Amino acid sequence: MDQARLKGVLAPVITPFQKDLAPDGARFAAHCRWLLDQGAGGLAVFGTTSEANSLSLDERIELFDHLRAAGIPPARLMPGTGCCALTDSVRLTRHVVGASCAGVLMLPPFYYKGVSEDGVFRSFAEIIERVGDPRLRIYLYHIPQMSQVPFTIPLIERLLTAYPGAIAGIKDSSGDPAHLRALLDAFSGSGFDVFPGSEVLLLEGLRHGGAGCITATGNVNPGPIAHLYAHWRSAEADALQAGLDAVRKTIQAFPLIPAIKATIAHATGDAAWSRVRPPLVELDDAQKAQLAAQLRALDFQMPQISSSH
Amino acid sequence: MDQARLKGVLAPVITPFQKDLAPDGARFAAHCRWLLDQGAGGLAVFGTTSEANSLSLDERIELFDHLRAAGIPPARLMPGTGCCALTDSVRLTRHVVGASCAGVLMLPPFYYKGVSEDGVFRSFAEIIERVGDPRLRIYLYHIPQMSQVPFTIPLIERLLTAYPGAIAGIKDSSGDPAHLRALLDAFSGSGFDVFPGSEVLLLEGLRHGGAGCITATGNVNPGPIAHLYAHWRSAEADALQAGLDAVRKTIQAFPLIPAIKATIAHATGDAAWSRVRPPLVELDDAQKAQLAAQLRALDFQMPQISSSH
Repeated sequence: MDQARLKGVLAPVITPFQKDLAPDGARFAAHCRWLLDQGAGGLAVFGTTSEANSLSLDERIELFDHLRAAGIPPARLMPGTGCCALTDSVRLTRHVVGASCAGVLMLPPFYYKGVSEDGVFRSFAEIIERVGDPRLRIYLYHIPQMSQVPFTIPLIERLLTAYPGAIAGIKDSSGDPAHLRALLDAFSGSGFDVFPGSEVLLLEGLRHGGAGCITATGNVNPGPIAHLYAHWRSAEADALQAGLDAVRKTIQAFPLIPAIKATIAHATGDAAWSRVRPPLVELDDAQKAQLAAQLRALDFQMPQISSSH
Repeated sequence: MDQARLKGVLAPVITPFQKDLAPDGARFAAHCRWLLDQGAGGLAVFGTTSEANSLSLDERIELFDHLRAAGIPPARLMPGTGCCALTDSVRLTRHVVGASCAGVLMLPPFYYKGVSEDGVFRSFAEIIERVGDPRLRIYLYHIPQMSQVPFTIPLIERLLTAYPGAIAGIKDSSGDPAHLRALLDAFSGSGFDVFPGSEVLLLEGLRHGGAGCITATGNVNPGPIAHLYAHWRSAEADALQAGLDAVRKTIQAFPLIPAIKATIAHATGDAAWSRVRPPLVELDDAQKAQLAAQLRALDFQMPQISSSH
């Protein structure tokens, strides 16, 4: 445990696109800087919300290198590096670990469904051994609604037994409070960090040993989420959680990733932020107006990212 | 319709691996040659059975180039080129269409679930326009049990209306006879070719205008499947179909891809054929022996691929 562990609120950073849908490194770095300024504990770039699987490996590596060149500290980065192909996961993980990232958030190979736990174990074993870097800290990415391939508690235990130095924690995006609680009961205090995948479970998680949260809406609401993280033992904690829930509920009533991008586009007056890659689709104008009005009604503090454009 | 259309039995060619799990181009080309010699109408390289999504894009391109150099005719090739990332699908499709492949078999982007038909349409529209090659012939790859993203009949109609030259057909791997029949009723005779994804539905398909089949077990049983394709109007057709079904049923009682590879390893006495990339797992020795014994009991003609090793 020589490296500092990531804690608190991590945003799976959205990926802005240029007109031709090429990744927009300058807006990306500006957004990362703003998130850290707002109190984000770390940046889970290349996650689901980042549309990372809609980017080629070269595009991800180029964006990562752009962030590094822009001065975003690797000690605050937890890039997503789990791909369908073993060789892709190895190449991307090796690249970011070589740059001393604090950790990586790793999907299981997600094309084949109904694979055995042996197969998933073998996949992680191959990656860990091929990367072969003692700095590697893997956070398992449990998101069965997308990957369809779960990390069960016995599988996590098997990975921890085989690779205690490399297996560092989990993002639980199941959204199931009972599953989160089972993970916390099994692992909290053991040095295996459990992050719920939404701020809706932030307080519940912290009360049972959670490490924070890694949450899509952290892209637009990082300050108030970080504030609850810092004050979760205070008398206002439940009220703060209720405030976060109201914002989350409003945004996720729309398709989540386009709604987050539309919120930033609205706040900055810069329509470029709205762009998504297929198969996602932008919100239409009526949805955008409705979302903005609903957030205004909540006195939501709009994200003010100073774009370098 | 200036290009000859692929018809008959297509095998989604398995990808052999070397000891370090690198793709084995020499065994791959030898297997492709054997399949064509046995009467396969075409080679659907880089499909689900090929573990294509477990290969990096560079590995797929290198394998493809190896096949071309080995003299496998592009007019018999239907490579899988649908990736999660738009830019990957474009790069791979452009590469194989540039080499004059007869067609491409294209998965929808498969990471995000519950995406809109608009999003899938937009994905194909971007790929077709970016590839920008009049030789492009796309076969839609409907395999909801893996991709979770279906091609509905209205979506197919929308694609055909927008890109009548580029949208050439579908592989229906749903395994649902009613779905196959609905596709055939909607499209057979229109120049949109419907291939069931298993030889179990070959005869049923041919009787209603199907174009053949694209089937995993075509890797080990191509001759008898091609024989039924050639004689489907004969008096023996139902008996031939029953023979194919017995073999298929025997093999798919085991994990399908490892079982196909184990069958070739057994037949050739070359254990290297058994290797799979994680998250798949090889059959264990007991399973291998059981499968071989069951196939022997069916008088199954073991595949005799002359390896150049």
